[in-house]
Amino acid sequence: MAKEIKELTPRAENFSRWYQDLVVKADLAENSAVRGCMVIKPYGYAIWEKMQQELDRMFKETGHVNAYFPLFIPKSFLSKEADHVEGFAKECAVVTHYRLKNSPDGKGVIVDPDAKLEEELIVRPTSETIIWNTYKNWIQSYRDLPILCNQWANVVRWEMRTRLFLRTAEFLWQEGHTAHATREEAEAEAHQMLEVYAAFAENFMAVPVLKGVKSASERFAGAVETFAIEALMQDGKALQAGTSHFLGQNFAKAFDVMFTAKNGTQDYVWATSWGVSTRLMGALVMTHSDDNGLVLPPKLAPYQVVIVPIYKNEEQLSRINEKVAGITAKLRSSGISVKYDHSDNKKPGWKFAEYELKGVPVRLAMGGRDLENNTVEVARRDTLTKETVSCDNIEQYVGQLLDDIQKNIFKKAFDYRAANTVKVDSYDEFKVQIEKGGFILAHWDGTPETEELVKEETKATIRCIPLEGDQTPGKCMVTGKPSARRVVFARAY
Amino acid sequence: MAKEIKELTPRAENFSRWYQDLVVKADLAENSAVRGCMVIKPYGYAIWEKMQQELDRMFKETGHVNAYFPLFIPKSFLSKEADHVEGFAKECAVVTHYRLKNSPDGKGVIVDPDAKLEEELIVRPTSETIIWNTYKNWIQSYRDLPILCNQWANVVRWEMRTRLFLRTAEFLWQEGHTAHATREEAEAEAHQMLEVYAAFAENFMAVPVLKGVKSASERFAGAVETFAIEALMQDGKALQAGTSHFLGQNFAKAFDVMFTAKNGTQDYVWATSWGVSTRLMGALVMTHSDDNGLVLPPKLAPYQVVIVPIYKNEEQLSRINEKVAGITAKLRSSGISVKYDHSDNKKPGWKFAEYELKGVPVRLAMGGRDLENNTVEVARRDTLTKETVSCDNIEQYVGQLLDDIQKNIFKKAFDYRAANTVKVDSYDEFKVQIEKGGFILAHWDGTPETEELVKEETKATIRCIPLEGDQTPGKCMVTGKPSARRVVFARAY
Repeated sequence: MAKEIKELTPRAENFSRWYQDLVVKADLAENSAVRGCMVIKPYGYAIWEKMQQELDRMFKETGHVNAYFPLFIPKSFLSKEADHVEGFAKECAVVTHYRLKNSPDGKGVIVDPDAKLEEELIVRPTSETIIWNTYKNWIQSYRDLPILCNQWANVVRWEMRTRLFLRTAEFLWQEGHTAHATREEAEAEAHQMLEVYAAFAENFMAVPVLKGVKSASERFAGAVETFAIEALMQDGKALQAGTSHFLGQNFAKAFDVMFTAKNGTQDYVWATSWGVSTRLMGALVMTHSDDNGLVLPPKLAPYQVVIVPIYKNEEQLSRINEKVAGITAKLRSSGISVKYDHSDNKKPGWKFAEYELKGVPVRLAMGGRDLENNTVEVARRDTLTKETVSCDNIEQYVGQLLDDIQKNIFKKAFDYRAANTVKVDSYDEFKVQIEKGGFILAHWDGTPETEELVKEETKATIRCIPLEGDQTPGKCMVTGKPSARRVVFARAY
Repeated sequence: MAKEIKELTPRAENFSRWYQDLVVKADLAENSAVRGCMVIKPYGYAIWEKMQQELDRMFKETGHVNAYFPLFIPKSFLSKEADHVEGFAKECAVVTHYRLKNSPDGKGVIVDPDAKLEEELIVRPTSETIIWNTYKNWIQSYRDLPILCNQWANVVRWEMRTRLFLRTAEFLWQEGHTAHATREEAEAEAHQMLEVYAAFAENFMAVPVLKGVKSASERFAGAVETFAIEALMQDGKALQAGTSHFLGQNFAKAFDVMFTAKNGTQDYVWATSWGVSTRLMGALVMTHSDDNGLVLPPKLAPYQVVIVPIYKNEEQLSRINEKVAGITAKLRSSGISVKYDHSDNKKPGWKFAEYELKGVPVRLAMGGRDLENNTVEVARRDTLTKETVSCDNIEQYVGQLLDDIQKNIFKKAFDYRAANTVKVDSYDEFKVQIEKGGFILAHWDGTPETEELVKEETKATIRCIPLEGDQTPGKCMVTGKPSARRVVFARAY
C-alpha cells in the first residue's frame, strides 16, 4: 500500500494513541467494517502463528490433544451453570434466523421471518457448556479419564468499547478443557497450565509475569479458583495475559457428567479450563516497543534479520547481491530467518525506518566499503546501536546477538517492573501511589467489600494474590483488619 | 470411553451407513447438540492438523501469507455482487441481537429486544465480500499488488441435510484471496492453486483427482471461471475436493477497488479465491477405507506405527518393553511416528481390531518367540497381510513399507477410478451406465438446458470439463449438436 511517513505519537504524550498508531502502522491489525471486529494483517498474524506454534508444542508436550467443538451454543446451555450465565450470557452475538430472502422492494436482502430458529444460538463466548455437554457422552468410567483437549478457535464477546487486540468483539484464542477423576489431579492440571503460560510469556515473549490467584470477584464465571499471569505494561497498567481455572465439579453437575470410579462408586467429574488469546499481541507490543516502533523478541519475530543493500549503481548492487547470498545461506543454515530487501523503489533510509517500525531484531546493511573490507554493518533494534563486523562467522555473531536481544528485552522489562512495584501500608499512600502506575503490594482484609471500595475510589483492582514472594501477614491498608499476606493491586487493561 | 464391539455396516450393504458408522466409531467426528454442527474429535482433528500443515507449507512456498478477517459480514455486503448474493445469502446464520437478559419468569435467559442490531450480521459462508471491502483500503497502486492472502477459518452454511465432514452447517477450511494487476496473473494464480490442491490430494491423501473447469451452472457464485479437483469415491459417486476461482474484476467492481497502473491508468483489480475444507476428511475416508475400518495414508496418519506386546506374565512384558524401547527409538530417529500400547486392561486381539479400525498403517506385534528370535510381526493395514521380520534394521524395513503403503493405496484408488471411468456415446447407454456409478466421459453441447435435463432425468451432473485428456470433438449424446470435447458426468456428493 502507499507508504506515507509513519510518525508515531510518542508514548509519553499519549500512550493509548501510541499503541493504536503502532498496531496499525506496523501492519499488525486494523479495525474492520464490522463494529468491534479486527482484521489481523499478515505481519501481525505471522507473530500470532509463532505464538501458536510454541504454545501448541508446549500443550502437546504436556499430554494434550487438539479437537474442535461447535461455534454455536444453544441458548439454554448457558443457563445451566448459574454463575456462568451471569458472566457470559449478557453481551453476546445471538443468531435468531437461518435464512435471508430478496427484499420485496427489489433492493438487497432481508431476514426471512419464516426462518426463525426454535431456540436461539449464541456465538460461543467460551466453550465450557457445549464441551461439557459433549463430554457427557465420552465419559462413563475412570478409564475414560483424564480427557485433555485443547481447541484453537474464534470467540465473540460483544464489547462496547474495543481496542485492537486488547478488547475486540471477536478474538482468536485457545481454550483447554480437561476432565479428571480427582480433585487433586484437576488442581494439578490448573497449576501446570499456569506454569506453561508463565514459561511461554517469559521465555518466548520476554514478558515477565506474576503468577497468582484471582480474588473471588475477579474469578472466571463458573470457576472455583482462577489462576492468572499478570504483566506490567510501560504505562504502568497491568494486563492479565492468561488464565487457568479450576472448575471443581460445577460443569459436571450442570451437565450431569458422572463417572464410575475404580472402586465402583459414582462421582461427578472434575474440570479445568485455561486460555490465552490474541490479547497476548497487545501485551507484546506494550511491554517492549518504543517511540520508533515495535521491538520484537527474536523468538517470535516473523523474520529475525533484514538485510539492506546500499549501492551506487547496478554493478555494485549485483556484487552486493552475490555477497549477501552467501550471508543469507549461512544465517539460514543456522536456523535464523532472514529477509533481503533489495527493492529498488525505496531508499535505504526509508527501509531502515520501516524495519525499525516493524521491530525486526537485527538489521544488516552492506555498502561499497563493506564489500571491500568483507564487513557488514549490524544494527540491533532493542538498543538502536550499530557496529561494523566481519562477514566471517557472521552466523555465529548474529546467533549470539539474537540470544542477547531476547535476554536484554526480558531484563529491561523485568527491571521496569521491579522499579514500578512498591509496598504500600496506608490507604492514603496507596491513593498517591496508584496515580504513578505500577504494581502495588498491599495488605487486604480479604473481603469483597474492601476490594470494591478500593476499585470505586481508585480504579485499582486486585490483580492477583501471588503464589510466590513475601507471605508475611499484616493489617488491611483500608480497614486495619487482619490480612493473610500482601496482594497485588494495579489499574488494569 | 467404554468400548463396545465396533462392528461396521459393510460397504456393500449400505455405503452411506458404513461411512457414518466409521466416522463415529474411529473417533473422527460426531454430531453435536447443535443441529448440523459437528464435533471433530482428537483423532480426526490430528489428521486435519496434518493436512493443514502440509497445505500451509505449500501455500507459503508459493508466496502466500496468512491473515485473519472477521467472522461477521454486514448483510448489505452480500448484496453488492449480484451472483454472489444469489449463491450465499439464502441459507446462512443471521445475528440480529447482541444481548440476552434474565427471563422475567426467572427461568433462564431471553433475547433482549432492546439489543437489536441496526444492520444484521451474517456468519461468513465465505469471505470474498468482507475481504474485498478490506482490500479497498490496502490497494492504491500496482506497487501494492499482488496481495496473496490465505486464512484458516470456520464458515457456516445453513444446510438442511447434513452428513459428517461432507456437508455440515459449520465447517473448517482455508480460503485464499488474491489481488492482481492483470488478468493473466490472476488466471495463472487460479491455475497454480488448482495444481497445489491436486498435488496435495495425490501425494499426501493418495487420492487421484481429475483437474477441470466447472460448467457455468456449477460455478462459484461470483466467479468468472471455477476450477476444481474431482475424486471418485468407492461407491461410484464423485466428490468435489477443492476449488480455485478466477473472479475476474467482479468483486473489485462490487467494492470499487481500483489501482493505478505503471503507466498511470486506473483499472479494477483482478481476483482469485480458492479453498479446501474438512470435506477432504470425507474424501480420505471414502477413498481408502474398508469394512474393517479406516485405511490412512502414512503421510497423514496421526501415528504411522503401533506396537502391541503379547505376553504371558509381567516378567515377559518387561523384557518386551525393553526390546520395544530400542525399536521405538530407531523408528523415531528415522522420522517415523510410533505409539506403543502396553495398556493392561485390553487384550491383544481387541487392540488389533481397534488399530485396524483407526487405520494405523503398520502394526508391530512382539511376543515371547519374537523375543527369542530377535523378530517382530509386521502387519500392514492396506493389504491386511503379515510377516515376521528381523529387528535388525527394522527402521529401514518399516520406512520402506510406509512408502509402499502410500504408493499402493494411491495405485488402488487410481485403478479403481480407471476401471470405473467409461466413455459413453448415447443417452440411453448413459442412463444405464449412470446406475453403475463412476465417471462417464460423454459429449455435451455446452448448453445449460441439456445439462439441466440430464441432471433432472439421471441425477448426474457435469463434474468438470477436464483440463487434460482426450480433446476430440464430437456430438452431444442428448441433442446431437456439436460438442467441443467429452466432459465428465457423475452423481456426486
